[in-house]
Amino acid sequence: MIGKILIVDDVATNRIVLKVKLAAAGYTPLVASTGQNCLALALAESPDLILLDLNLPDMSGLQVLERLRAEPGLRHVPVIMVSANLETQARCAAFRAGADDFLLKPLDDQTLLARIRSFMRARDLVDSYAPHQGGIALLGLAEAQASFELPGIIALITARPDHALKLRREIAPHLSDRLLTLTPEEAMAEGSHPGATPDVFLIESDFNGPGSGLRLMSELRSRTHTRNAAFAVQSSQGCSTGAAVAFDLGAHDMITHSITPEELALRLARLLYRKREADGLRASVQDGLRLAVTDSLTGLHNRRYGMAQLAAIAEVSRRSGLDYAVMVVDLDRFKSVNDRWGHSAGDAVLIEVADRLSRNLRNGDLLARIGGEEFLIALPQTSLNDARTIAERLCHAVEETPVRLGGHVSLHVTVSIGLAASMDATAQAGKDSVADLIDRADRALLYAKSAGRNQVTISRTAA
Amino acid sequence: MIGKILIVDDVATNRIVLKVKLAAAGYTPLVASTGQNCLALALAESPDLILLDLNLPDMSGLQVLERLRAEPGLRHVPVIMVSANLETQARCAAFRAGADDFLLKPLDDQTLLARIRSFMRARDLVDSYAPHQGGIALLGLAEAQASFELPGIIALITARPDHALKLRREIAPHLSDRLLTLTPEEAMAEGSHPGATPDVFLIESDFNGPGSGLRLMSELRSRTHTRNAAFAVQSSQGCSTGAAVAFDLGAHDMITHSITPEELALRLARLLYRKREADGLRASVQDGLRLAVTDSLTGLHNRRYGMAQLAAIAEVSRRSGLDYAVMVVDLDRFKSVNDRWGHSAGDAVLIEVADRLSRNLRNGDLLARIGGEEFLIALPQTSLNDARTIAERLCHAVEETPVRLGGHVSLHVTVSIGLAASMDATAQAGKDSVADLIDRADRALLYAKSAGRNQVTISRTAA
Repeated sequence: MIGKILIVDDVATNRIVLKVKLAAAGYTPLVASTGQNCLALALAESPDLILLDLNLPDMSGLQVLERLRAEPGLRHVPVIMVSANLETQARCAAFRAGADDFLLKPLDDQTLLARIRSFMRARDLVDSYAPHQGGIALLGLAEAQASFELPGIIALITARPDHALKLRREIAPHLSDRLLTLTPEEAMAEGSHPGATPDVFLIESDFNGPGSGLRLMSELRSRTHTRNAAFAVQSSQGCSTGAAVAFDLGAHDMITHSITPEELALRLARLLYRKREADGLRASVQDGLRLAVTDSLTGLHNRRYGMAQLAAIAEVSRRSGLDYAVMVVDLDRFKSVNDRWGHSAGDAVLIEVADRLSRNLRNGDLLARIGGEEFLIALPQTSLNDARTIAERLCHAVEETPVRLGGHVSLHVTVSIGLAASMDATAQAGKDSVADLIDRADRALLYAKSAGRNQVTISRTAA
Repeated sequence: MIGKILIVDDVATNRIVLKVKLAAAGYTPLVASTGQNCLALALAESPDLILLDLNLPDMSGLQVLERLRAEPGLRHVPVIMVSANLETQARCAAFRAGADDFLLKPLDDQTLLARIRSFMRARDLVDSYAPHQGGIALLGLAEAQASFELPGIIALITARPDHALKLRREIAPHLSDRLLTLTPEEAMAEGSHPGATPDVFLIESDFNGPGSGLRLMSELRSRTHTRNAAFAVQSSQGCSTGAAVAFDLGAHDMITHSITPEELALRLARLLYRKREADGLRASVQDGLRLAVTDSLTGLHNRRYGMAQLAAIAEVSRRSGLDYAVMVVDLDRFKSVNDRWGHSAGDAVLIEVADRLSRNLRNGDLLARIGGEEFLIALPQTSLNDARTIAERLCHAVEETPVRLGGHVSLHVTVSIGLAASMDATAQAGKDSVADLIDRADRALLYAKSAGRNQVTISRTAA
């Protein structure tokens, strides 16, 4: 079931009313009447969102929240505290314990639904790339956690500079993060504050005429350097813009009534926390993708990536009509290195040879490790003659200096190279598939081996 | 530089006016006055968006567009055609050639900027996970391309059912995709049309009162089954909602004036194409992530994932106080299998043993291949006694039936298992780190090996 929302309230009427509304809006409501109930149901059902009343019969909503946040599987679930309590201390305590919002009863339907939509959209990242809890653990926020300790950067954008400065003075004592007061132009310009791209924006909704704050937010959300920032919108006095539209435009928090500087600071800190959580997840995804295309020993591209890239190079060549060349490079007598000196010596040789090949290729050339001691090289827009020159340079670069192992041991290492070009004299232009080309390079390599190793052989026969 | 927009127009004044506007909005404008100019600049600069005038001195804008779409590196760049030409044939031809929008001169500034923001936001996916062109090639749309041939599903939501049916009749001849007329309730309910989640929605902006269409779009964009759909909004008669807001709320196309059924069909087809392109990219990212955590030979989790998961299991155990157990499983005399029967026989044995281990574990147990012939197993919430029973079952499951290779060859295979529990009698509770636990299991494994193999040894000494 999708869009599971757990309603926690000790008053039956409240639960029923909310349940009906959420079901009508297409969600799957679950209900709990006590704190224990809530914790058990949350563990069993993994809801997408929890609406948690502050006053429960068996324990306070705050205690429930603390327990939820201590549970690894529930730490990421958005929690909206609900209460008729106007006291700022209760609200501040909730944000400190990890609440994502605090709504006052009676709840405004349109705002509540827009708020829920906003949380559901924020789950995109997790749902798309780490669908089950295991994924979250893997893409785990362990590495990112470290950055949580560093101060973040929070930018304030208000109608009048003196107002921004006053706001900054008021909230600064409650935050250990950097507070900037920015003009909209400064916010838009990447690098206007080098090394200081804001993590969180607090924008006054009508700082420069009706709707100007929301337009600025839309602009910032479309820019590369700010698109992953968190956005809080503060209603201007007498502002007519509904909170619902602000949420649907991408706001993460909406401050519609007057709150204390401490609560504002805590809300901003919570947004910063969530923003960094998402950053960590994105970084883990990129990390995972990098691993998927990398050979872990040499750091070169792996076979899979090499083959995909070669297909792309072939496609560009087909369209442009410009020749490209493929080499298969194999270490000579590598088995004897492993047998005589051990696997770690073999690994050291592979790493050093990978490095020498890499340093002797051009930007844009492709180099991948496609087997134990076998490398694939593709040279886009390169004639057979130029490719031969490069191949000979590679042979020479490997042979010229012995590879140093630990101690005083140095090994003389050589490679054999089989070379084929996409449209050399003997190939039938246009009929060369990538597989044929590699096949020809492979056969040329065998010839180089049987002719004595440490040399380049060029495929002269069409497939 | 970020937000590069290429302006292609043969009239100098037009170029300058647009350049100034886009620069003021924080983008980096590039300008070209001819088709050749445009193609050269696009290749050299890889712009994020191209504003292409239909009439150019050296070739038609349509020809330029076709050339752009034939270039692998530029195929994905959004192109907005610009013209004073009201002719529907010219517009249809542009969409057929791969235009993403067609704007009439004079351009409305707010709408143009919102349109540009919308395209910039759509680049998120590519920018986040495939930052350089190589990434796109890897995550290449090759596999996804196949699905481009299947008909898509396009849903129409309008104020009056008879209007939707009329619309459907009109555009059906121009599309090979499935056209559904849906009520908003049907659109929101997942699975109301099994196997028929729409790829594209066409929503009348005020189908049920002012703003109702945009609200429905916001709802659908927050739902798991429809959040990646494409959305076209059609202005109701006399509708006051600005196109700018619709784009900022996530619309991918906005139809504000009367167009022919053919153009509407072509616009919907273009949205479908872009949506599938994004689906393909997402699928490739998930694929890459899956590869990053999987051992390619056995299909089990790999070492990296196994270790991350084990840390997560340890953390849950620490909080819950419930015991967990770790096993290290090693194939006995595996080297001799490889030496005598060859590597492919060795691989077959590994695959079969992985499968037997997997079938004899419970849901939620962790199984990973962490070395050549070594497996890691973690059993959450399991006592040492239960873990021993499971370990003995695993030994038996491997030993009981010989592994069949090709032909008539069957090999008798056994495993040795070292077992350690997080809080067994001899361990100092709370002082067990994951590394210590694996260490203890490893030493127990060595003992099992030296005691004759094909058996389970339990670690009885604390680290």
